Amino acid sequence: MIVVLTGGTGGAKLIEGLAVEIDPAELTVICNTADDCVLHGLHISPDIDTITYTLAGLIDDARGWGIKGDTFTTLEQLGRLGADAWFKLGDKDLATHLMRTRLLSDGLTLSQVTSQIGRTLGVNEAILPMTDARVETRLNTANKEVSFQEYFVKEHWQPEVTRVFYAGVEESNPAPGVLDALGSASAIIICPSNPVTSIGPILAVPGIRDALKKTSAIVVGVSPIIGASAITGPAHKLMSANGWEASALGVARAYADFLDVFVIAHEDQSLRAQIADLNVKTVATNIRMDDLVSKRRLAREVLALAKK
Amino acid sequence: MIVVLTGGTGGAKLIEGLAVEIDPAELTVICNTADDCVLHGLHISPDIDTITYTLAGLIDDARGWGIKGDTFTTLEQLGRLGADAWFKLGDKDLATHLMRTRLLSDGLTLSQVTSQIGRTLGVNEAILPMTDARVETRLNTANKEVSFQEYFVKEHWQPEVTRVFYAGVEESNPAPGVLDALGSASAIIICPSNPVTSIGPILAVPGIRDALKKTSAIVVGVSPIIGASAITGPAHKLMSANGWEASALGVARAYADFLDVFVIAHEDQSLRAQIADLNVKTVATNIRMDDLVSKRRLAREVLALAKK
Repeated sequence: MIVVLTGGTGGAKLIEGLAVEIDPAELTVICNTADDCVLHGLHISPDIDTITYTLAGLIDDARGWGIKGDTFTTLEQLGRLGADAWFKLGDKDLATHLMRTRLLSDGLTLSQVTSQIGRTLGVNEAILPMTDARVETRLNTANKEVSFQEYFVKEHWQPEVTRVFYAGVEESNPAPGVLDALGSASAIIICPSNPVTSIGPILAVPGIRDALKKTSAIVVGVSPIIGASAITGPAHKLMSANGWEASALGVARAYADFLDVFVIAHEDQSLRAQIADLNVKTVATNIRMDDLVSKRRLAREVLALAKK
Repeated sequence: MIVVLTGGTGGAKLIEGLAVEIDPAELTVICNTADDCVLHGLHISPDIDTITYTLAGLIDDARGWGIKGDTFTTLEQLGRLGADAWFKLGDKDLATHLMRTRLLSDGLTLSQVTSQIGRTLGVNEAILPMTDARVETRLNTANKEVSFQEYFVKEHWQPEVTRVFYAGVEESNPAPGVLDALGSASAIIICPSNPVTSIGPILAVPGIRDALKKTSAIVVGVSPIIGASAITGPAHKLMSANGWEASALGVARAYADFLDVFVIAHEDQSLRAQIADLNVKTVATNIRMDDLVSKRRLAREVLALAKK
């Protein structure tokens, strides 16, 4: 069993490659839920949806989120009715949020809802939320506190962030199956996702980091950073806000207590000695994933490392 | 001030005509809400929406409900996710239900929500729900109890109905403005709507029937029945279920305690003497409204009667 820890877009690219290479029954994905939010009264789980749509073959590759070919009729009409329409919700996508919200209000857990929606969309891999509890990444900026979606989507990650924290995480528990999956995995892959707002919340759920430290599985990470910048998104900015070095070395330091192998970019060869000092092996390769060929190639390289 | 009592489709036709003939500031519409239902976690108010869309110029004339040119992308996707999709919710229409549901959960009343949505869609007439409380028309059929929407939309009004009742109506109160409107109106028009499931619930809200009996306004009704059948829909079937005669005379009897003038079909001339015995004046005319010309013509005839 291969277990993958992931956020949304960046992680989804590697997972798309992994899904081609591995039997679905052998792949379990543990998803960040700290970017979940309630908009228009609907429970949105952006990372779970991105992974579900990716594994269902529905993802809009060009955007990196949502369902390909989706329309935005309801959202446009909501705008006419005076609602905030900065978070783009497609018409098909909306069905997912309506279904999730209703099932949650019927008393199902987020795990159960995620499993049901995945199944109906033809996903055969297991997608587990990191927790069924409500955890929310919050960011302090110069003049206000915002959610990750407000910072990322509404503010286009431009405000300077002074602090990132995960509201509710201390009281949360890993969702059913998460610790078992980590304990029984043959390999664990940490996706090239934002280490502060995607992987960070997963690691902060009580019990998960310990399970990673204790597992007998080999833990392989893929860097989301090349040089001093994230391949996509604001990871480098939020690492700096956290007082971390914005580099693959900074990511390696954040994961050093449980990471066995770290896959970094060719461009970051010079960091290998410093990462080795953390007792983490490195492999330098091309970590950009611009098409299915490069996603599969990197997935195969990671799987080869995970077998050692 | 002209005050109109109405359900959905049939009433909307007359209201479309009235709206052309009257200054919007002079028209108040009191809407049935006993067909309201919760679907996919959303609060749907079918009659309020039909009237709102009609007065906003958005109504799908061919269907008699929903927004013209609307698509059904979200509903089709909900079907794929395993949801019941028998109640047709268009993508633009869905924005109304999302907005209403969120505003209600924010603590606004149905009156406030109806007014806000109407305003943003450019409606200048006042649309008042009969009550802000939850009242629901329930129907007993041979083997089960169903809501009106289940009977009407899902079962295509085919099961035999043995009893109709308005759950919750005894504990309800007229929405703010309803009794004032009835008390201060110069004329009150009872639309050609289903007397059992559209006008019936309005009359059953404590205080409304009394206000109609006491008002100094002239009360003019339009028959929804020609011969022994409703012009559209199941009114005649539900009148029979209620033990009423399925005819314009049956409707006149149901309204006789407050009705001054009843507009009936030419075809029902023979009922005039019996209706006169109820102390209700009759006018026989063409009550079919197949296009805007006939809607306006009937509206003008009704308004002329309302001035007498």
